[in-house]
Amino acid sequence: MATYRQQKRCDEEGVFVVEGPKMCAEALSSGFEIRVVCAAAEWLEAHRVSAKEVYEVGAAELERLSMMKSPNQVWMVLTRPERVPLPATRLPLTLALDRLQDPGNMGTIMRTADWYGVRKIVCSRDTVSCYSPKVVQASMGAVFRTEVEYVELPQWLRACGLPVYGASLQGRPLQEVASERGAAVLLIGNESRGISAEAMAAVDHPVKIPNLGGTAESLNAAVAAGILLNWMAAGK
Amino acid sequence: MATYRQQKRCDEEGVFVVEGPKMCAEALSSGFEIRVVCAAAEWLEAHRVSAKEVYEVGAAELERLSMMKSPNQVWMVLTRPERVPLPATRLPLTLALDRLQDPGNMGTIMRTADWYGVRKIVCSRDTVSCYSPKVVQASMGAVFRTEVEYVELPQWLRACGLPVYGASLQGRPLQEVASERGAAVLLIGNESRGISAEAMAAVDHPVKIPNLGGTAESLNAAVAAGILLNWMAAGK
Repeated sequence: MATYRQQKRCDEEGVFVVEGPKMCAEALSSGFEIRVVCAAAEWLEAHRVSAKEVYEVGAAELERLSMMKSPNQVWMVLTRPERVPLPATRLPLTLALDRLQDPGNMGTIMRTADWYGVRKIVCSRDTVSCYSPKVVQASMGAVFRTEVEYVELPQWLRACGLPVYGASLQGRPLQEVASERGAAVLLIGNESRGISAEAMAAVDHPVKIPNLGGTAESLNAAVAAGILLNWMAAGK
Repeated sequence: MATYRQQKRCDEEGVFVVEGPKMCAEALSSGFEIRVVCAAAEWLEAHRVSAKEVYEVGAAELERLSMMKSPNQVWMVLTRPERVPLPATRLPLTLALDRLQDPGNMGTIMRTADWYGVRKIVCSRDTVSCYSPKVVQASMGAVFRTEVEYVELPQWLRACGLPVYGASLQGRPLQEVASERGAAVLLIGNESRGISAEAMAAVDHPVKIPNLGGTAESLNAAVAAGILLNWMAAGK
């Protein structure tokens, strides 16, 4: 089981790991196929699980499986779902991520998108995997509810037929731009390098969050995404 | 030097640790007193440092000192400044934090506050220390520019004489509340438990960020703080 700690093995088998009572409760109600459950006896007694393999394990074994500092009762391997991609034109808002690298940011952005009712996230192929364990945990269950598609992002943005709003330090201040009422795409770039030139060429409306203090160099990418999602949602 | 990895020692000596070329460059220009510098030869050659103790160290020694996965050239111990607290009534916006626990959230909130020009953060005594190494690093230099004061928060809020806006799931939707034009306080609560009853009693305007998706349980505290700071700043 411990080899599922290797991202490579999970990628090859088309699975991902979820752990802790809260996330595993979400997994149980998600409808996702559960391949493996390793859990403490108390957890197994309290839950009905339908999985290919179920193992009762002790604290030491959970510790060996877990990526967390304080492993907690239950650890699962789930099958990544195969989804027919949702058409962005039918959704109020689609989020696009260009080269996002930090798993914590990625998971937090998925969680925030979920809060704002965003059902689809489109990512450049070099964006961190939505199935990386840290992403899954930080998403707080959004991984079960949000479609994350990895595409050739500049081409996708050009072909989607929707107005694209992009976070850019060269954009117009948020407060001066009316947020889109119809279907739209919001594009967020890499933590330090922002949106690539190729993806930026597909942006119709570059917008910036004004730097009111004048001393900070940048915002955290997940915070910026939250502020922009809140702004975009205001128009819906 | 490695004993400075113990938060207790840093608290007792009134110092904090900063590392990496970016944060240490900010430290150099901050005017903060530098007690110790441990750096690679290249870094020392490229920088003029006035510090009580300066040591040239190799990669192995940096690794021993650092809390980072990839230690980077320079590590410093700085004196925590003694400041005369800024009066919140003279500032457009003061941030208040009640029982915030996660160092990453705390640092990210300091960084966001810095972006919005917030000069003062008031914290309940059980809020994570702004000098914890993870907070310092996540603050991206805001630790040098923002006054963080630890107080009896409910009393402080009652005595400050300013309208207090508090993030609460029982509050009015953000979009329906006019953000304050005058001086004000924005209060953010604990990651999972929110604002304590005692502090909530001092809130004049409970506000919530509407849950548009209806599936996510909550927002990350730093993201929520960012959305609320952006909203408060709009009134200024």
